[in-house]
Amino acid sequence: MAEYDLVIKGGRIATTEGISTMDVAIQGGVIAALGRELQAPRTIDATDKFVLPGGVDAHCHIEQLSGGGLMNADTFETATRSAAFGGTTTVISFAAQHRGDRLRDVVENYAGLAAAGAVTDYAFHLWISDPTPEALEQDLPRLIEAGHRSIKIFMTYDRVRLLDEQVLDVMMVARKHGALVCAHAENHGMIKWMADRLVARGYTEPKFHGVSHPRVCEIEAFERLIRFSQLLDQPVMLFHVSTAEGAAVIRRARGEGIKVFAETCPQYLFLTAQDMDRPGLEGAKWMCSPPPRSASDQEALWRGLDLGDLQVVSSDHAPYRFDASGKLAAGSDPNFKQIANGLPGLETRLPLLFDAMVSQGRSSLEKFVELTATAPAKIYGLHPRKGAIAVGADADIAIWNPDREVMLTNDGLHDNVGYNPFADRRLKGWPETVLLRGSTIVADDRLQAAPGSGQLLPRSCSTAMRPTGRLSPEFDPATNFGAQLL
Amino acid sequence: MAEYDLVIKGGRIATTEGISTMDVAIQGGVIAALGRELQAPRTIDATDKFVLPGGVDAHCHIEQLSGGGLMNADTFETATRSAAFGGTTTVISFAAQHRGDRLRDVVENYAGLAAAGAVTDYAFHLWISDPTPEALEQDLPRLIEAGHRSIKIFMTYDRVRLLDEQVLDVMMVARKHGALVCAHAENHGMIKWMADRLVARGYTEPKFHGVSHPRVCEIEAFERLIRFSQLLDQPVMLFHVSTAEGAAVIRRARGEGIKVFAETCPQYLFLTAQDMDRPGLEGAKWMCSPPPRSASDQEALWRGLDLGDLQVVSSDHAPYRFDASGKLAAGSDPNFKQIANGLPGLETRLPLLFDAMVSQGRSSLEKFVELTATAPAKIYGLHPRKGAIAVGADADIAIWNPDREVMLTNDGLHDNVGYNPFADRRLKGWPETVLLRGSTIVADDRLQAAPGSGQLLPRSCSTAMRPTGRLSPEFDPATNFGAQLL
Amino acid sequence: MAEYDLVIKGGRIATTEGISTMDVAIQGGVIAALGRELQAPRTIDATDKFVLPGGVDAHCHIEQLSGGGLMNADTFETATRSAAFGGTTTVISFAAQHRGDRLRDVVENYAGLAAAGAVTDYAFHLWISDPTPEALEQDLPRLIEAGHRSIKIFMTYDRVRLLDEQVLDVMMVARKHGALVCAHAENHGMIKWMADRLVARGYTEPKFHGVSHPRVCEIEAFERLIRFSQLLDQPVMLFHVSTAEGAAVIRRARGEGIKVFAETCPQYLFLTAQDMDRPGLEGAKWMCSPPPRSASDQEALWRGLDLGDLQVVSSDHAPYRFDASGKLAAGSDPNFKQIANGLPGLETRLPLLFDAMVSQGRSSLEKFVELTATAPAKIYGLHPRKGAIAVGADADIAIWNPDREVMLTNDGLHDNVGYNPFADRRLKGWPETVLLRGSTIVADDRLQAAPGSGQLLPRSCSTAMRPTGRLSPEFDPATNFGAQLL
Amino acid sequence: MAEYDLVIKGGRIATTEGISTMDVAIQGGVIAALGRELQAPRTIDATDKFVLPGGVDAHCHIEQLSGGGLMNADTFETATRSAAFGGTTTVISFAAQHRGDRLRDVVENYAGLAAAGAVTDYAFHLWISDPTPEALEQDLPRLIEAGHRSIKIFMTYDRVRLLDEQVLDVMMVARKHGALVCAHAENHGMIKWMADRLVARGYTEPKFHGVSHPRVCEIEAFERLIRFSQLLDQPVMLFHVSTAEGAAVIRRARGEGIKVFAETCPQYLFLTAQDMDRPGLEGAKWMCSPPPRSASDQEALWRGLDLGDLQVVSSDHAPYRFDASGKLAAGSDPNFKQIANGLPGLETRLPLLFDAMVSQGRSSLEKFVELTATAPAKIYGLHPRKGAIAVGADADIAIWNPDREVMLTNDGLHDNVGYNPFADRRLKGWPETVLLRGSTIVADDRLQAAPGSGQLLPRSCSTAMRPTGRLSPEFDPATNFGAQLL
Repeated sequence: MAEYDLVIKGGRIATTEGISTMDVAIQGGVIAALGRELQAPRTIDATDKFVLPGGVDAHCHIEQLSGGGLMNADTFETATRSAAFGGTTTVISFAAQHRGDRLRDVVENYAGLAAAGAVTDYAFHLWISDPTPEALEQDLPRLIEAGHRSIKIFMTYDRVRLLDEQVLDVMMVARKHGALVCAHAENHGMIKWMADRLVARGYTEPKFHGVSHPRVCEIEAFERLIRFSQLLDQPVMLFHVSTAEGAAVIRRARGEGIKVFAETCPQYLFLTAQDMDRPGLEGAKWMCSPPPRSASDQEALWRGLDLGDLQVVSSDHAPYRFDASGKLAAGSDPNFKQIANGLPGLETRLPLLFDAMVSQGRSSLEKFVELTATAPAKIYGLHPRKGAIAVGADADIAIWNPDREVMLTNDGLHDNVGYNPFADRRLKGWPETVLLRGSTIVADDRLQAAPGSGQLLPRSCSTAMRPTGRLSPEFDPATNFGAQLL
Repeated sequence: MAEYDLVIKGGRIATTEGISTMDVAIQGGVIAALGRELQAPRTIDATDKFVLPGGVDAHCHIEQLSGGGLMNADTFETATRSAAFGGTTTVISFAAQHRGDRLRDVVENYAGLAAAGAVTDYAFHLWISDPTPEALEQDLPRLIEAGHRSIKIFMTYDRVRLLDEQVLDVMMVARKHGALVCAHAENHGMIKWMADRLVARGYTEPKFHGVSHPRVCEIEAFERLIRFSQLLDQPVMLFHVSTAEGAAVIRRARGEGIKVFAETCPQYLFLTAQDMDRPGLEGAKWMCSPPPRSASDQEALWRGLDLGDLQVVSSDHAPYRFDASGKLAAGSDPNFKQIANGLPGLETRLPLLFDAMVSQGRSSLEKFVELTATAPAKIYGLHPRKGAIAVGADADIAIWNPDREVMLTNDGLHDNVGYNPFADRRLKGWPETVLLRGSTIVADDRLQAAPGSGQLLPRSCSTAMRPTGRLSPEFDPATNFGAQLL
Repeated sequence: MAEYDLVIKGGRIATTEGISTMDVAIQGGVIAALGRELQAPRTIDATDKFVLPGGVDAHCHIEQLSGGGLMNADTFETATRSAAFGGTTTVISFAAQHRGDRLRDVVENYAGLAAAGAVTDYAFHLWISDPTPEALEQDLPRLIEAGHRSIKIFMTYDRVRLLDEQVLDVMMVARKHGALVCAHAENHGMIKWMADRLVARGYTEPKFHGVSHPRVCEIEAFERLIRFSQLLDQPVMLFHVSTAEGAAVIRRARGEGIKVFAETCPQYLFLTAQDMDRPGLEGAKWMCSPPPRSASDQEALWRGLDLGDLQVVSSDHAPYRFDASGKLAAGSDPNFKQIANGLPGLETRLPLLFDAMVSQGRSSLEKFVELTATAPAKIYGLHPRKGAIAVGADADIAIWNPDREVMLTNDGLHDNVGYNPFADRRLKGWPETVLLRGSTIVADDRLQAAPGSGQLLPRSCSTAMRPTGRLSPEFDPATNFGAQLL
Repeated sequence: MAEYDLVIKGGRIATTEGISTMDVAIQGGVIAALGRELQAPRTIDATDKFVLPGGVDAHCHIEQLSGGGLMNADTFETATRSAAFGGTTTVISFAAQHRGDRLRDVVENYAGLAAAGAVTDYAFHLWISDPTPEALEQDLPRLIEAGHRSIKIFMTYDRVRLLDEQVLDVMMVARKHGALVCAHAENHGMIKWMADRLVARGYTEPKFHGVSHPRVCEIEAFERLIRFSQLLDQPVMLFHVSTAEGAAVIRRARGEGIKVFAETCPQYLFLTAQDMDRPGLEGAKWMCSPPPRSASDQEALWRGLDLGDLQVVSSDHAPYRFDASGKLAAGSDPNFKQIANGLPGLETRLPLLFDAMVSQGRSSLEKFVELTATAPAKIYGLHPRKGAIAVGADADIAIWNPDREVMLTNDGLHDNVGYNPFADRRLKGWPETVLLRGSTIVADDRLQAAPGSGQLLPRSCSTAMRPTGRLSPEFDPATNFGAQLL
């Protein structure tokens, strides 16, 4: 009979399928058995605790130059430390190709940074802003096949956005080699038009950032990308859905068999545009793109998650300090276009959702696990190694105390941002002990992992890619050119 | 450390969440551990096999008088024997109250029949055709609280159908006491009107059964019941969806937050109306209600299952022999209204779906498990005891040989029907060994269980009942009468 | 060159197509010419006035026993007098067959009453509550062919409602002989269930009438009748749409090619459920079925009219005095089920709409003419004789003073009801002079027509009947029985 | 009494509202009276003929450089001559600003060309491809106020397309000054991407033009422009709808209150993609953008016209000879990208539609008048002067012989194109006599008007502009900047 390294005893284990009180035995960093009365030299008592898969945060910006051109406040060390304290054990950040960069080198560079600093495991989305022939024909295929199985594109931001025909180029490469395409989908022209008019007329405070991203700019871009997906039968992941209409567009497309997947973030479930409406520049702390919307949008997004129209909740952690290194880099009297967009969220994502879904009863523990760990692991090709409490999976485990209440404060986080946009909320339920591949990385409110202990995760093809379906009729093989065209 | 009675070694275990090669240890009829290298005095080698939860068939007619007034061909013994050979370990059949019957006695009677004959576990839907005050106020509440947590209603069939106001009465009792309402939803007037005209004009062959149930009779009844559900915030399960439009109506309602759930059956995924169009009375073997439709409906239903708009595939096993005891009871020259509706399906449900979804690659093994075992177990209040390979669950397990090919024949089934509407199909994948609560009930193509070894399952409240939402605005407590009215 | 009897000089003539300043020449009761500088021995100066077609009110109850069993307060004399003062020159009321009545005799009887009293022209909907073989096979075909080209059915009210199969019988006769089917579409079971519970628990005041007709009871019945229409390709007119969802259901069905037409009434455009919420029984004055809803429903109905989803605005004039002969017939302490439903509206329909659409600018004068005169004339087979200012049309003309302001009061109407549910509203625009077939019937605030001067109008087939489309696939001639079945 | 110049005797006059046999009296080029037995020194006998308003063709390219850079084959003389023979008396062509042109000068230039050649009346859409500050702030406002009340924009074609932010600029000017925005809406990137791939792989024949404009490229662009319309509450006219999904998108948007209007053309109602699939370059004769689609799209477009989702049928006359001056300008072996897109259609638009709608009975004569004359006149601000047989309207009249059958041939047209894409069709119904402002311009198959006899029509604000509604919430005045931003 097997000998185990460690057994977590008597916790309530939750998966997407159900909840059961049992023991989890770990051997060699992997879950070796689930059962009752399992034994090992070392044990952790989890009685009255929830034993959940460590979170998978599939959308975060770490140690990276933004689309707007500003450096993030967090290194891999500070970002993954913050993630770990929040119960997250895997992050997918961006290998951000800016124009002129060679994509292959970009990935290598980010891999080096992460290898030095990360305390959680990690992977990279291939962020592409310069789809040169070299990138499309050499680097992307090789990187995808090496396990970097997702690509990030932008439909807005001058420095990084792709034209429609470039989006199609990237999608076709993704289809051929098996990568998911993730998108920041907002209409560039609308935002530019609104922002230019607002600034020209002196409407420059942070709250006008929200105005400059009208709801329809998201809806339009979703509709457009959905049509591209329909044309090429290539799955797309719509990042950070913020509006009710956006969720409705997604539902309709899915009903028509179009392979569209979607994410939302805590800022769209818990914040509103009013949060940006504060004296002076204070509102800049809540500026992100797309902007938070309204209470009725929040309700629609929750329903979209319930219905499965949206599958994932990520943080979109985009860390900037509220000082001259970050939000206030443009001086003391910037207009909203000069202020970096983004919020920290790696650490608060899980506690915010746990409190709302489980403690307050809006949803179920199983669904919490699905949205925050299992579904992202599947969609991004990390399952069954990550995102599950299952035999054979990495022993990435967060042990939650469902009764612990925590008041969020501006200085309570472990990132390098210096404020918390969710401060002053009291949450019930907290991840007290966190294991990565069987090793405790957080316990007793202290980090117990060394920088660089995280690993790069090669990924398999997204479940979203299966099955390969039919291309648009324009590619119909009956016309004898379908295959050749691709 | 635990000592186990039995270990199933080395199989590929599938749940809704994923697939993993591991051992399953059983102790006291319950799954005690999942892991690697588990040991026990007795083992079953499942190398290269799939180890799946035993099927849960949530819709079957056993040893029962039909809505049309004819006795089923199967007893609990023959029906559950057939189920077991097909990999199903739990059935939910009907405790069928006909008018004048006392519901309490009906349940007691069926429980006696099942206790004597069943070789699988079982539960009952409370079939109500006579919602007297006694039934509504006494029997239903007590039976629901005793664990019979679903009610079956009919919107057509003269002998059993309820009027709209009676449907509302039943739904309100269900809401109050926590039962799911399941419905045969077809418009009675349309069917009657069509059938009367057809018969009067001499269109009497079996194929005209299909004509007499026009597509809109299903769509209409779905729409009506959905409005009742919306009024009372009471979940409903629409049985045997047969049309693309029906599936679309369900999707739209779910998108509006209405608590509608849906089932389809193999006959709507694999048969069409053409199957009833055969010389003489032969087509009667394929007559069921609603009738099979078309190939494009099949596609729509598969998509509905993929999207989660439909959650369950049951058999609607309704067994009648093709002789004077069954289909031909009305003599040698019956019109289609005189022929009993229904097909056998308990034994073929899982192999047909496995072949299509897994062997032919239309879907995934995880989804197969979900549709046939886990989802029905959850929706009907049997989870986590049934429908799952999980620590603490009953060891109801089917070990499938994914490579075994079987040609279905008319005499190859173990029920008492005498023909197989799916005969002459070659299927790949077959459940070779079946365990119920740890005991082998089928192996080596032989039944290894004694009649009466099955158990009655008390059920908890359906997951469909949670969360309790809002009633229609007409019940708004602001008008001070909402609570009192219920 | 023609010699004219009368010329209306210099008015602004409005049709559905446009507005033009010109003269209208009348000869022999018919419009003989439109032009400039037309001359005749007799002239009416209409400078600065609007010259509009006389209104066609296609839904009113006159001198009739209601579905609830109470006699209307108005005779043909009082009702059509009231209509004439409000600018309406044609009414379509009901020849109401109650069970046991012979339909042929019913029509003859109503024709006699109208011939004696009416001061406007009139026609009858064939109200059928007893579809006996004699009615279906003899009376309906003959009456339809004699020009009574619309049938009224009820889906609720115990005394008059038809079962679903009876509805189909009537629709098939209508299809064959060329009549439009008009329906009071509300779900009977829901209303009964709600009302019984409300009354049993003592919620008996008038406002609970509204509660007892939940929104979904309208939506459901619309959906059902739409499915019947789809089955038989028979146009239906949904009377008195009251909800936003009802209007949405209609729009969706029309988009699918289903021949559904719809009406709303001033009570749903100008009143709300709050109007019934008054001390004591006062609210009963505003009780009608369906009940007035909310301000947002009003908006949705206006949009439905704009979009053409709803085509007609009628009054549903259903006159009961607020005394023991009418609303209070059940004594001094009735519950809402004992109070007759209905409002007077023949006289106020046009002024209310003119004020809202034209004076307040919500819509256009052309659309006002369409909704109140031209569209009902077309849909009910009276066009081009009625509903138009066109050469060859009857000279039924209302000359409106667009600047005249009138304060509605309870005693200002010319019917026999004794109150005005729209009292205390100030309206701008009033029909000062009204002509019927060239004869002035109202001028100087006085009636100038003798009882019995109105004529019965034989009608042609509704434009809604054209083109005849396809029946449901169940009737497909490919199966060789379509034609025979009808 | 009036003395008339001319009376058209005894014809069947059709308007959108109805059909009536009567006389039409004309005086000073204007319709002076409609009636019976009208007299004048000069008469035209129209017994057994249809007397219809002259057609208004709101979309045609005349004497103009195309978006692709090639000169049209038709001058104002040849184009309007062709229109007149086809029963059309008003054309709206383009004052086409190419980049670098000053818009004011462009209009002046086209006005000069038309003044010299036109035999029908005419107006211009302001085609803008270079929205400079001068154009937006000076020329557009002045030209709109001078009566050029529509603007044409392109979302594709390299030479003329606008960026999204430019589209918004133009729409805002249109909103402020009262002009309708008309769009060629196809996704530029998709077309470019498809065409580049096709050509690179040698798929160069005319039929691949159709493939290079996938259906979704239309759908996407419609969706995008609809969102712009929604943002700014500015009506848009979608030109040349070709797909069923495009029509569905429009219907949905209109149902949401978005001010979208739509046109289709005979090529989408009568041709399919198969027409381009002919040996060699022959298929180029049928190349237009968007390309003809399929028979099921034709059905959907007819339904869209029936339902009012599409309001107008224009020709999109874009004349190129099938020789080196036109379609074959790129030499003897061009790829499809080098072939000019466009078909002649000014002359055949009305006969094709009359035959289908009236002679073959698909629709009604009233609807024919609406789609081809009255609706375009209203939407483009020409009503009531044009598009109507009404007192005060210009006497632009086409007298149709409903029984005359004509076989279309390649050399039977009066334009300068040299072929007829609708050749070899036999049509029933033909406009034999055509009057413009009371003067006969076509009779006895001969032109009876001199070049330059047509007039430039100043236009009033489109009915589509009324009422002015609400801007998107982003412009909410509650935030104190709505008004200023516009």
